[in-house]
Amino acid sequence: MKRVYLDYISGTPLLPEAQAAMSAWLERVGNPSNHLHREGRVAAAALERARKAVAALIGASADEIYFTSSGTEANTWAIRGLVAAHRTKGKHLVLSAVEHISLLHTVRRLEREGYEVTHVPVDATGRVDAAQVERVLRPDTVLVSVMWANHEVGTLQPIAEIARLVRARGVLFHTDAVAAVGSVEVSVTQTPVDALSLAANQFGGPAGVGALYVREGVGITPLFDGGIQEHGRRAGTENLLSIIGTGAAAEVIRQQQHAWFAHRRSLRDALEQALRMDHPACHVFGHPTERLPGHLCVAFEGIDGESLALGLDREGVAVVQSSACTSKVLKASHVLKAMGVPEPLAQGACLASIGWETTPADIEQARAAFHTVVQQLHSLAVVGPLSS
Amino acid sequence: MKRVYLDYISGTPLLPEAQAAMSAWLERVGNPSNHLHREGRVAAAALERARKAVAALIGASADEIYFTSSGTEANTWAIRGLVAAHRTKGKHLVLSAVEHISLLHTVRRLEREGYEVTHVPVDATGRVDAAQVERVLRPDTVLVSVMWANHEVGTLQPIAEIARLVRARGVLFHTDAVAAVGSVEVSVTQTPVDALSLAANQFGGPAGVGALYVREGVGITPLFDGGIQEHGRRAGTENLLSIIGTGAAAEVIRQQQHAWFAHRRSLRDALEQALRMDHPACHVFGHPTERLPGHLCVAFEGIDGESLALGLDREGVAVVQSSACTSKVLKASHVLKAMGVPEPLAQGACLASIGWETTPADIEQARAAFHTVVQQLHSLAVVGPLSS
Repeated sequence: MKRVYLDYISGTPLLPEAQAAMSAWLERVGNPSNHLHREGRVAAAALERARKAVAALIGASADEIYFTSSGTEANTWAIRGLVAAHRTKGKHLVLSAVEHISLLHTVRRLEREGYEVTHVPVDATGRVDAAQVERVLRPDTVLVSVMWANHEVGTLQPIAEIARLVRARGVLFHTDAVAAVGSVEVSVTQTPVDALSLAANQFGGPAGVGALYVREGVGITPLFDGGIQEHGRRAGTENLLSIIGTGAAAEVIRQQQHAWFAHRRSLRDALEQALRMDHPACHVFGHPTERLPGHLCVAFEGIDGESLALGLDREGVAVVQSSACTSKVLKASHVLKAMGVPEPLAQGACLASIGWETTPADIEQARAAFHTVVQQLHSLAVVGPLSS
Repeated sequence: MKRVYLDYISGTPLLPEAQAAMSAWLERVGNPSNHLHREGRVAAAALERARKAVAALIGASADEIYFTSSGTEANTWAIRGLVAAHRTKGKHLVLSAVEHISLLHTVRRLEREGYEVTHVPVDATGRVDAAQVERVLRPDTVLVSVMWANHEVGTLQPIAEIARLVRARGVLFHTDAVAAVGSVEVSVTQTPVDALSLAANQFGGPAGVGALYVREGVGITPLFDGGIQEHGRRAGTENLLSIIGTGAAAEVIRQQQHAWFAHRRSLRDALEQALRMDHPACHVFGHPTERLPGHLCVAFEGIDGESLALGLDREGVAVVQSSACTSKVLKASHVLKAMGVPEPLAQGACLASIGWETTPADIEQARAAFHTVVQQLHSLAVVGPLSS
């Protein structure tokens, strides 16, 4: 049976250009920090080429891009590094209630160290109200962090508006754009953020590479001290091979993104329409229009997400249960909870994420698989643990 | 002109087995955290196979291995994570004076947070006296960190003795084995350390992967919170491609290491002898016998290390100036300083590191290159900045 991979959010396939660039590098040797020999200089040039490509993708300059080992590291560093460098400003942070767990857990630890955190709620579509962010700002607010787009339901936040309001109040603004970069246009030129996290495995690069954009002139304390790498702000020998793949992917995505957004959106809409037609009682989460183009987060009453995902896997379709990386135990996603989705329904949520390689035939196979599995599970009465 | 790469310490070439394993993975997709679909389960199995291979290389069990993004991250995490988890024990740390800068800079930051650090000196060969480590232990000593082998001069520390003495006093012991693993046998079964750092690009794996061994039962606070990855202790999507290469390299190294140690030692000794013969006034640093097999740290009076390394590069030979990753400005290595090497001589030090691919012909070419360059520089009177 042909496999249909609808789990782009957990990691996209490597773009052929990234594969080719990495294959070519597998045979090379050279540490970018060693400018005294040719191997090192060639490596340094490759590193800087990749940095420029990532910078160009988000409208930054290369000096503002710091490679990290993941979106999680970028998020953790943004929070810890910015509050440490600006600690005289105060100890109050503002986050949305639907941020990625790497941010939520990091600020939870900061709370134990004496920081105070305000979590701004979201509406039923998962959207933050920019005015509400502004209302909770205080003189001692050191940092606001609101994601560009939500990884689970795909809802896009009014980032430009929030960024403007926060900046007008002289407060630092970070955005987790991990789910966004590669799926919608993201520009730090048009949107005045101070720091932005991204991850290569969301736009056709390899897993294990993230980056933090830090606007020129903004102070940030390193997480890793020691070496001179990454402009002296992130020590450690660079993951050059994967960074080269990241640069190659960034170049392709920058050129293709508008065509690919349209492709993903049209296939996502086709699947959504088909599921609504086949299963009138299904629930689709997230904002109806302000949503990542490939995202479809869906639940069927009385069916739990794990059984649904496992059933679809048997039918050749890979999707992910909402919030799979939070925990191995069955727990409703904090995102859906914050949106006011009842617990039993939230436990049924699965996320299909559609990518540039997805075809109309894949969508047909996925539709048929959903149909088969939902019917099977309904007839077996495999219901969510808290449903009646 | 054939290139002779004598900079294994900055990053070894990828072993062919690692290249093959990584090439094969370039076309795959799958996030090890997603057990609900086949792609994720296959990825998880590959991750655990690599973890077992790394564990086997140092005599650990797979549950005790946590992949990181570099040796620097492993070192940083070891220090910050262990002191945070054991803060009730006290705020005193003990390090040798010749540790890697990732450790020295991390404890410098801890000093600003109220910790106290004792730096144990080394003798002229770069070796720590185990009895002296024991003498500086205090009731509030929370952690001792002494490296297995020094990255610059190759000196091996009396780790087994230090580990026994420290353990007998009930103090946690971490060792930075980044330069050691892959170059000498390292076993946590024979040497009772509580935590150990290693890096894949020292044993034929890719740059950008490190690991921290943490003995079962030893508490450590995560640096990255959030996801369930790495037994819940290090969040962030795994760098699976490079980890697969790391596992493949670890398997090869475990089987070949004794033969390769002998090969490296014999070629290193040959180069050392030749240089001593050609330049009777040259200085070789490090312990005469207790030294990493491929390491040759050498200086020529009146010649600065940067000119020497650049000259050798022009003759096709890649070596590194001592402590190149500390800074882009000319500064003598803290390691050589701690060994009592006078500043002008220390600024002349270059490190040739010899690997498994090095051949006797390479050594001949390197000898000739040293001869040419040393003669040129002497005739040009390019002398170290502080020499007469």
